[in-house]
Amino acid sequence: MAYVNPSGEYNRDQRYISTRITEDGRDGYPVEPGRYRLIVARACPWANRAIIVRRLLGLEDVLSMGIAGPTHDKRSWTFDLDPGGRDPVLGYERLQEAFLARFPDYDKGITVPAIVDIPTGQVVTNDFAQITIDLSLEWAKYHRAGAPALYPAELREQIDKVNRFVFADVNNGVYRAGFAGSQEAYEQAYERLFARLDKLSDHLTSHRYLVGDTITEADVRLFTTLARFDAVYHGHFKCNRSKLSEMPVLWAYARDLFQTPGFGDTIDFVDIKKHYYVVHKDINPTQIVPAGPDLRNWLDPHGRESLGGRPFGDGTPPPPPREPVPAGHGVI
Amino acid sequence: MAYVNPSGEYNRDQRYISTRITEDGRDGYPVEPGRYRLIVARACPWANRAIIVRRLLGLEDVLSMGIAGPTHDKRSWTFDLDPGGRDPVLGYERLQEAFLARFPDYDKGITVPAIVDIPTGQVVTNDFAQITIDLSLEWAKYHRAGAPALYPAELREQIDKVNRFVFADVNNGVYRAGFAGSQEAYEQAYERLFARLDKLSDHLTSHRYLVGDTITEADVRLFTTLARFDAVYHGHFKCNRSKLSEMPVLWAYARDLFQTPGFGDTIDFVDIKKHYYVVHKDINPTQIVPAGPDLRNWLDPHGRESLGGRPFGDGTPPPPPREPVPAGHGVI
Repeated sequence: MAYVNPSGEYNRDQRYISTRITEDGRDGYPVEPGRYRLIVARACPWANRAIIVRRLLGLEDVLSMGIAGPTHDKRSWTFDLDPGGRDPVLGYERLQEAFLARFPDYDKGITVPAIVDIPTGQVVTNDFAQITIDLSLEWAKYHRAGAPALYPAELREQIDKVNRFVFADVNNGVYRAGFAGSQEAYEQAYERLFARLDKLSDHLTSHRYLVGDTITEADVRLFTTLARFDAVYHGHFKCNRSKLSEMPVLWAYARDLFQTPGFGDTIDFVDIKKHYYVVHKDINPTQIVPAGPDLRNWLDPHGRESLGGRPFGDGTPPPPPREPVPAGHGVI
Repeated sequence: MAYVNPSGEYNRDQRYISTRITEDGRDGYPVEPGRYRLIVARACPWANRAIIVRRLLGLEDVLSMGIAGPTHDKRSWTFDLDPGGRDPVLGYERLQEAFLARFPDYDKGITVPAIVDIPTGQVVTNDFAQITIDLSLEWAKYHRAGAPALYPAELREQIDKVNRFVFADVNNGVYRAGFAGSQEAYEQAYERLFARLDKLSDHLTSHRYLVGDTITEADVRLFTTLARFDAVYHGHFKCNRSKLSEMPVLWAYARDLFQTPGFGDTIDFVDIKKHYYVVHKDINPTQIVPAGPDLRNWLDPHGRESLGGRPFGDGTPPPPPREPVPAGHGVI
């Protein structure tokens, strides 16, 4: 299996393209309306962060979005959802083309989210952790009126701290469990994941959100993993001490976010399930996609309003999505 | 995958050795104390039926039991739990030896439960559905005082009917889902399984047991599948509309039986999980065994006493097991 070291531990290749799109354009790519295209797949939790943040901040008019299909081969993400199988703006069949356009010998992962420079067709960055931060800070001039502050200066240190352990133990932790190459490596990842979820649950018992009393970048990052928990990670990645729906505090927290405009309306459960179960032939050789679980419970009342909090702070919720998930791909 | 037909449907090979051990010995094998050895594996739901029935009926003194380990290779079940890796009575390393002793060219499945004639070392039968019925009817002379009537004449027709659809949709239904060779065959098995579970749930809402007001052969047969549901079938076989623990009536019914002497005390969750996840390399190539789920909830109060019923009818519960499951292999 790829990326598994001799002790069986999964190591994510974290060599992303670190070029940044900034207000001052110091890497050669200044923030500019209409110039770039965000490429995502609804299946992918890392891309899902960018979809949510772009939508919460109202950047749809200045940063267009191309959506790759849920499954792919060794050459990675393709635009097979688009008419003719090509992204209508870039004209590409595969995201790989944008990577090779900039780096002809590119040999690392072709990953989403990626941002492509439309005039040259070259990828600018696929550094998912930086992308959402830059959407908050570098693109501030183009945020919609009422956009929430997802990464406010006074909470930044705390958000960074939460993000670090949520990444290590949860976001990447589920992959460490699912792609473990040994029983021991799996059990370590499993213990670490659930120990962290228990701690997060303790915190969220008395706090509506992870940091402060509004939604922040930290909530976005935890949410995209929780949204995939019962549908995929519980069974496919063997993260099965319990379902998310059996952890009452985290489950209510996740439903609260799901029901907040900008979160649940980006979730495509059909694509999510298809991606993991079809692409990971090494852990699901039959490529059969489970019919369960029943997901309508995501719409159950969560009762978290009683904890107070102001989801959008001094801002407002975003309007309905420009690119809604296809009918039947959500919870109902 | 073995036993999958062109449309991807799993077909269980049901050509078992149909020789019977009877009171009148018409197949050459009369019921006789001490002459036979029941070979089981605690992992196997079909063998589990025989373990439960033997124990409920108090046949331990007249029919000894050999226990194969949870995992095996192409040559099937081995006695690797025994000192020296051999069954202490038969002297065999593998159950296969008993099959070949009787049929040198035997080419069908080496399955448990099997009953072996100790003097000749030859297998008599592995016809699991007949074995438990014969323990009830043919071995009646040797039942303990207070043994329950698991297959009483007046309920037989009804029990047979329930057993037929429980076998097709549930006992074998989970295998049809897990071993399906196509998405379509899987989804058919999944729909049929949960439709049947819903119907059983409706019935059990107002009835403590499946047939009549005491435990019968029908309950034994449903129980051994339910006991494996959350531990294995939910994830490994993709029977994941919901966990058993999310189906309140069936879950209370299963816990009621689990907490009845003779049922839960035969369940070895460690062996169960190991068997499925290690042996079925074609659906779990990593052979990693999930650490979850948390199973302590099997001991939660079930509240089914309010439905009335007399678990053992005019009989009594069996005494504690002669062959307890190893420490740490049950729910606690």
